[in-house]
Formats: sequence, C-alpha cells, structure tokens
Amino acid sequence: MSRSIDEARFALESQPFSRLVKAEVLQYSPDAVELRLPISEEVKQQHGFVHGGVVSYLADNALTFAGGAALGPNVVTSEYKINYLRPATGNFLVARASVVYQGKTQAVCRCDLYAISDAGEKLCAVAQGTISLMGTPSPR
Amino acid sequence: MSRSIDEARFALESQPFSRLVKAEVLQYSPDAVELRLPISEEVKQQHGFVHGGVVSYLADNALTFAGGAALGPNVVTSEYKINYLRPATGNFLVARASVVYQGKTQAVCRCDLYAISDAGEKLCAVAQGTISLMGTPSPR
Amino acid sequence: MSRSIDEARFALESQPFSRLVKAEVLQYSPDAVELRLPISEEVKQQHGFVHGGVVSYLADNALTFAGGAALGPNVVTSEYKINYLRPATGNFLVARASVVYQGKTQAVCRCDLYAISDAGEKLCAVAQGTISLMGTPSPR
Amino acid sequence: MSRSIDEARFALESQPFSRLVKAEVLQYSPDAVELRLPISEEVKQQHGFVHGGVVSYLADNALTFAGGAALGPNVVTSEYKINYLRPATGNFLVARASVVYQGKTQAVCRCDLYAISDAGEKLCAVAQGTISLMGTPSPR
Repeated sequence: MSRSIDEARFALESQPFSRLVKAEVLQYSPDAVELRLPISEEVKQQHGFVHGGVVSYLADNALTFAGGAALGPNVVTSEYKINYLRPATGNFLVARASVVYQGKTQAVCRCDLYAISDAGEKLCAVAQGTISLMGTPSPR
Repeated sequence: MSRSIDEARFALESQPFSRLVKAEVLQYSPDAVELRLPISEEVKQQHGFVHGGVVSYLADNALTFAGGAALGPNVVTSEYKINYLRPATGNFLVARASVVYQGKTQAVCRCDLYAISDAGEKLCAVAQGTISLMGTPSPR
Repeated sequence: MSRSIDEARFALESQPFSRLVKAEVLQYSPDAVELRLPISEEVKQQHGFVHGGVVSYLADNALTFAGGAALGPNVVTSEYKINYLRPATGNFLVARASVVYQGKTQAVCRCDLYAISDAGEKLCAVAQGTISLMGTPSPR
Repeated sequence: MSRSIDEARFALESQPFSRLVKAEVLQYSPDAVELRLPISEEVKQQHGFVHGGVVSYLADNALTFAGGAALGPNVVTSEYKINYLRPATGNFLVARASVVYQGKTQAVCRCDLYAISDAGEKLCAVAQGTISLMGTPSPR
C-alpha cells in the first residue's frame, strides 16, 4: 500500500507551499522519514531564527509522510502538538519522523526537528500527532 | 507593557516569512488578536487546499501575538497543539486568538482558524498553546 | 443517536474508577457537558491540591462525554492535550466540555476545568481533544 | 540538585491519590523514570479496561518525575498531550518517561505507557509535555 521515495518526492513537489520553502524528502519509510529545507532569509522571523511556523510546517509534513509511509499516500494530519526547544539557525532544518502505532485508519507518529549548521545538529523541536486515512467511511 | 496594533503590525512585517505569505494583523488585544493571510496558489498543498503547515503557521503566530498582547512583545510560543477540522479553501485564512490565562512569565492562549470565502466563514482548525516571555531568569 | 442525561449518569456509574473518585454528571448535551467531583483528601497530591492526574481524568471524561453526546455513546477519547493553569483547591472540581466540530466518526471538543470553593470558581486547566466512534471500519 | 530513588518514592507516597491507585517508582533518572500501578477493578472503566484518566494520571506523574529528576524535586507539569493507542488490560500499567530537553526552568519530556500482562507488554499510549520549576521568579 505504501509508495517509493520517488513517489513521496513527487507528492512533496506537488505541494506549491513545499516548493516555495524548498522542502525535500531525504528518507522515506514508516520507521524513518526525513524531510529537509534550507534555512534561507525567507523562512526566518524577526530575530534571524527560522519562524516557528516553518518548523511546524516541516513537523506537520514529516508526520504526514511517516503516516503515509505506513497507511498509504491518501492521508492527512488530523492533529499534532509541538514543543519548541531551541531557536533554529544554521544551514538546514531537518525533520525526522516515525510511526509509533499503526491502526487500520490512523497512525500515531513522533517527529524530532533538528537545525543543522557547520557545528553539527541541534534538536530544536519535538512533535507528536495523528495521521488519518482520508475518506474513512462512517461506521454503521 | 503591551504595544499598539501599529507596533504589532511592524513586528509582523519584520518577519520575512510572514511577509512571504502576506500575513496581516487585523485586530490586536489580549482578548482578540486577528491575523489573516490571502489564500494564494503558493500556500496550498497538492489538493488545492491551504497547506496544513500554513494553517499551523498562522495559528502559532496568532497565539504568540495574543500572548504578546498580554505579556509584552518579547515572547515566544513554547508549545501548542492543533486539530485540523476541515480543508481550508476560499479567499482568506483568518486566525483569532485570545488569552485564557495570564501568569507572570507565561500565558495560555486559544486560537480558532477560519477559511473565508464568498459563502461565508468556516471553522477549519482549533489550537491551544503556551506563550512565554523570553529571557526568563532561572530560579535559585 | 444521543442519549439522555440519565443514560449518561448510568454510563459514568458503570466506570469503577469514576465511582472511586465520586464523579457525577451535572449537564449532558453536545454544547454543555458538566462533570463534577468532590475534592476529598484522596484525590490530592503532596501539597494539598487536586492531583494533576485527577484533573486530567475529569478533563478526559468530560471530553469523552461531550463527544458521546454528539456521536452516540460508543466513543473513546483518542487524544487530548491539557494546560494546567492554577492549583485546584476548594470543594469541587468541575469540567465543562463542548463540541467544537462534529464529523461522522470523530468530534473535536474543548474543556474548561474549574475549582469551586466558597469564594467562587477559578479556571484551573484547559483541554482540547479528539473523540472517536469505536469500531470504525477500515476504508478500502 | 536531583534526588535519589528513595526520595522519589517518598514523594510519590506523599501523594494521597498515588497511594489510592497504588503507584510505585521502579526507576528514577532523567533518562529513565518508570512508574507502575496494578490493574485492579478500581482503576477500570465500564468495558474492563484501565480508565483513560488513570493512564493519563500515570503519564502525567511519570513526566513530572522525569522533569524532577533533571530539574530538582520542586516541579509541576505545565502541560502535556497524550495519544491513546490500545486499551490497557492485564496486570500492570507502566509509564516510562525521559527528558528530551532540559533548560534552566523547564524540561520537555516524553512518556510511553505499557500494559503488562502474562503475554508480555503492549504500548497503549504515548505522551509529551512540559515540566516547570515552581516559583520561577518573574523577569524584570
């Protein structure tokens, strides 16, 4: 039911917003989804750090892709929560997500967000959420 | 300690990412912060709806601005959670946030996200989170 | 599809843990579920306040009952988040929950938790979560 | 600044509610807090599973203890979110928590909840939240 990394890349490329922020798929499996975006001026807030909303975007998308790697491509993020830990600065923002639990119509996933700079990588946020198959029929 | 709507607008304009997605401040008080962004092609995902990450961005920012309206401008979002309810489509995405509880160094806020179209407005997500003053000194 | 307040009371009474903490249903409709428990010594932590876990229990149950008032009795809480605002002390802990969004198989609900003392009531926590119909069949 | 497992056990024993549900500390360090409670009739809901509110209680407490192992004993849970994955049934409910990030006044922790039966252990919930030092002074 799942799809290849090439299909995942095609899906990401089909999202105009993901193209806008230049997000990429680096890894794609239920155990290890990795998304990345370059830290350009455009994704920052007023203090020079990556805007929290962009960190959230990448977390949300990585959670969705992890859920999609488990449940199939036709999924949406139903809900998630994120804790910001440190300002994100450097060259790249990376989100690593994996499936914690997979049911028939939902998966619960976790995601760690790292800021990558020349000095190495620093954990800057952690997230947890629910990914759902779209078009779930109502129970009788 | 708070700031005027003009200062809030200036703060939003100082965020390169908020300029990129053309976010605006429509209202600014602890009881009623309203942020808005136009639903252009650029903020969409592959099905033509606003990307969840953009909905999250606006929720995060509205929560921060509500907390900032209560605590002063020097704040960050520490954490939040969001439930997506309906696909966001139409002309504008609007986030309305307010302060539920204000302490000395933190505020807890809620946010409702609406998609505005010619047919009216539809609730498309709800969020809840913690806004913190930056530079909180450590206790002894 | 919903049930009467008497049926809701019967359901609560069927939960051994809810009997243990003497929880009661005061109101029961999708717009206004109210659960209450007496603040006895047994539900406290070491500082004399209601244990956060008991506040969470009442939030969780009120969310479930609000979702059940909308979707029918056969529901479970899938997930929620809670922000603790103030220590809960006094005579009663009260949870007021309502449905924010109702789909076919899920409802998103919010809940406010109050500590009731002779001096009045104080908001002590806020929660938000997803209630799901049990036995949702898998989509093909 | 931290405390021994004996002090952690004393702290748990000082909570009347934790005595009521017979919770115990099995491990105590920032990397590995383990709390456990026996699955008796009293902690169940109407279907014979552990009440979600009890699962939440143990998650909340394990998060607090993990934060306390890092920050010192004078801590509270500020907020958390929990996803329920499977009904909890068997002999024991176990919560394993660890610190993901430690700042001066806050720690962000994660927690996995397991139901232990003769057949082994099953993951039944996952949580993530913020633990805060009490009495954090206000910034100037």
